[in-house]
Amino acid sequence: MSLAAAFVWPCTERAWGIEAPSGSSAPRRLPNLVIIFADDMGYGDIASWGHPTIHTPHLDQMAVEGQKWTSFYVAASVCTPSRAGLMTGRLPIRSGMCSDTRRVLFPDSAGGLPADEITIAEILSDRGYATACVGKWHLGHLPQYLPTRQGFDQYFGIPYSNDMDRVASAPSGRQAFLDPQISFWNVPLMTNSEIIERPADQTTLTRRYTEEAVRFIQANRDKPFFLYLAHTMPHVPLFRSPEFAGRSRRGLYGDVIEEIDWSVGQILKSLREAGLAEETWVVFTSDNGPWLSFDEQGGSAGLLRSGKGSTWEGGMRVPCVMWWPGRIPAGSVVREIGSTLDILPTAARLAGAKLPQDRVLDGCDISPAMFGTGPSPRNHMFFYRGTRLYAVRLGPYKAHFITEEPYGADTNRQVHEPPLLFQLEIDPGERWNIASAHPEVIAEIRELVARHQAEFKPGEPQLDRRISER
Amino acid sequence: MSLAAAFVWPCTERAWGIEAPSGSSAPRRLPNLVIIFADDMGYGDIASWGHPTIHTPHLDQMAVEGQKWTSFYVAASVCTPSRAGLMTGRLPIRSGMCSDTRRVLFPDSAGGLPADEITIAEILSDRGYATACVGKWHLGHLPQYLPTRQGFDQYFGIPYSNDMDRVASAPSGRQAFLDPQISFWNVPLMTNSEIIERPADQTTLTRRYTEEAVRFIQANRDKPFFLYLAHTMPHVPLFRSPEFAGRSRRGLYGDVIEEIDWSVGQILKSLREAGLAEETWVVFTSDNGPWLSFDEQGGSAGLLRSGKGSTWEGGMRVPCVMWWPGRIPAGSVVREIGSTLDILPTAARLAGAKLPQDRVLDGCDISPAMFGTGPSPRNHMFFYRGTRLYAVRLGPYKAHFITEEPYGADTNRQVHEPPLLFQLEIDPGERWNIASAHPEVIAEIRELVARHQAEFKPGEPQLDRRISER
Repeated sequence: MSLAAAFVWPCTERAWGIEAPSGSSAPRRLPNLVIIFADDMGYGDIASWGHPTIHTPHLDQMAVEGQKWTSFYVAASVCTPSRAGLMTGRLPIRSGMCSDTRRVLFPDSAGGLPADEITIAEILSDRGYATACVGKWHLGHLPQYLPTRQGFDQYFGIPYSNDMDRVASAPSGRQAFLDPQISFWNVPLMTNSEIIERPADQTTLTRRYTEEAVRFIQANRDKPFFLYLAHTMPHVPLFRSPEFAGRSRRGLYGDVIEEIDWSVGQILKSLREAGLAEETWVVFTSDNGPWLSFDEQGGSAGLLRSGKGSTWEGGMRVPCVMWWPGRIPAGSVVREIGSTLDILPTAARLAGAKLPQDRVLDGCDISPAMFGTGPSPRNHMFFYRGTRLYAVRLGPYKAHFITEEPYGADTNRQVHEPPLLFQLEIDPGERWNIASAHPEVIAEIRELVARHQAEFKPGEPQLDRRISER
Repeated sequence: MSLAAAFVWPCTERAWGIEAPSGSSAPRRLPNLVIIFADDMGYGDIASWGHPTIHTPHLDQMAVEGQKWTSFYVAASVCTPSRAGLMTGRLPIRSGMCSDTRRVLFPDSAGGLPADEITIAEILSDRGYATACVGKWHLGHLPQYLPTRQGFDQYFGIPYSNDMDRVASAPSGRQAFLDPQISFWNVPLMTNSEIIERPADQTTLTRRYTEEAVRFIQANRDKPFFLYLAHTMPHVPLFRSPEFAGRSRRGLYGDVIEEIDWSVGQILKSLREAGLAEETWVVFTSDNGPWLSFDEQGGSAGLLRSGKGSTWEGGMRVPCVMWWPGRIPAGSVVREIGSTLDILPTAARLAGAKLPQDRVLDGCDISPAMFGTGPSPRNHMFFYRGTRLYAVRLGPYKAHFITEEPYGADTNRQVHEPPLLFQLEIDPGERWNIASAHPEVIAEIRELVARHQAEFKPGEPQLDRRISER
């Protein structure tokens, strides 16, 4: 077996060799892009991905009409770096959007996604797209970092996580989450750069985000658009609309997922009603795995190991459903590797945009796999925790050079030499270390790491600076 | 909350109060029954139940056209008692088909399912059904215990597990399973009461079982029938037809599942071609959870805890897909409790048969839930290991009085007083013990156990007698 023969580095090299779609199946105009991003939803939290009690008819139907990606990864196992990777198509360390001390941005953070990073919104905006960011941003909340400074025409949402800005009078520790009240978290709700509500009424966020998204779709029937709908939920504290209270057998967490599922149904319905279904690429996925330390208020990674915060599969492999009637084969499953890093190059390709030539991109154009015309050009994935490379997947194999518990006072960081090795297609749960039987695979992965590190230039760190230090 | 108010005991009491289906949707003749029973297949081994790399298009399509049951249980966590429960609609301890020393029947066993037990085959045979058992029996291999003595017109298959009768020259321990050869296990293949091949060519069993099943369907276009297709696979040693060798990304285990999936497709296709799809109730399920101690040669329980041999959910909750075009609502999901114990009373009801009045049945008529006309009448489940009651589910709650590792020299049996308590709809992975918060639930479960034990009469033990002791 030679995996090296299949090396693509950067993987976009191969991606750009693929011909643009043409002929009768070509869309009449540049295709719209809708990204629906859940927050901390796990690999096992959708009915058609194996959850026994969460009822997700709209996501299930989306998969029946569309496509499941079963080996789809985010760029990091926590919010801020994951979102930086999605927005830029680059590993978060290239933009400085990761850190070994503060893993995400906080309300006292002074940093954000640097202005010279090029986002999906900027690329598509240059091609004449209308662009909207609805929901959680978490790539910088100071004015210079807001979505409207990163290619979005409009923004409606909260600038960071919904568990931040906890007020002094709120219960301490986990207590606040067990019976969450809106007043416990003084999170702002913004329109563009204005705070319009504080604390945000979190019970209505999923509904209001959805309404805003639908309005944007309806307002752009005649113009290509990019909608980035980044739900605040199911990140703790968990809130849902009154109509969803007590609806799910899975309890509060299930209510929250079922409202997101309702929202997915509303988005697809509005696309259909606007006559845009066949001109719109919709991607549903999550920013990282479930926050397991929150017990029943966290989700499930299904058969995967560990969850949010971890470089085990449960932390970075997420459910992903793509939908594009007439273009994406209905009911298809892609078992090859894909990543949120790939959305930017794929979207750029579909929109006929040029990719920046002055920087390394970590994404591939995955449209061949999406359209069923060829394999996924992605053959590897890097698993960073903060600024350190913990694990690498190459083909079906994943080597863990470092493992660490996701959270806690003693995270038991372990360096492995030789690395642990798992064959993920056979062993998605990462149970059987086969390192001793496959030194040649480890050698290939080391070669990949060496090439990665040789071309590597970290960005200026953004997550450690605080407002008081500016 | 009062669960006691919803008590049904025995649960068949309520089941028989439900009206028979009538009107335009009624079948033209007594409906056929097809039970497809996999061996050691786990809750997480089907693509549409969350497995990332096993390709099961026919089971997935069966679920799209039919119904998933996500809280469906077998009567025991190992082969023999599980099958006794399925065939009789009674807990295996009532028929003596369980033991604390030998957990299943072996080639030197002298026992079997007693002749005075009434099987699904006997009930349907009395109603004029043609009946066939194809595949693994494991309810006694001496002549008086074979399927043809239990209501089946015909039998084709192996009488016990495919890892039995290991020859002295075969590699010892786990070694034999890593590169399995047909010659290692001297398992007989039988037609009715004759051995026609020994050792059975296990590579072709799935295919030959399928062909036999299809022949039976084709031969009974004009007569109601009951087909019990009990696959030998994916029980170790794993074998598949040459056409499936190397087909699955999941390795050998995946190849085996994908051949079973092919078989499911063949069965449904033959029903369609015979014009019988709308007159046939098809149930696909497994006899118990995955044999996890066989590592990559065992399956996956998905998000459930533990596997075969255990009274944790992974041992006894199994995937279940039901199919009956025109009767079972397409794409439906039943999240309430069901069990293989319920197939006998449901089948009897559908066939207009009387149930035996001289014995306790543990099954319910679950047709209301199946047809979407009402809830499942089953509100509890008993989890026996051998002759001991380890755990009880009542509504969404499960109490573990005893827990024990499924296999091994030291199985660490632990008695819990008070019992461990889990809310399975919220916590299917049995992670968060809530016993201290819900003494009232434990009290209700104790009441249920007391009623169960008061009416309880164990059958004469069948699994410990050996041929030499007759």
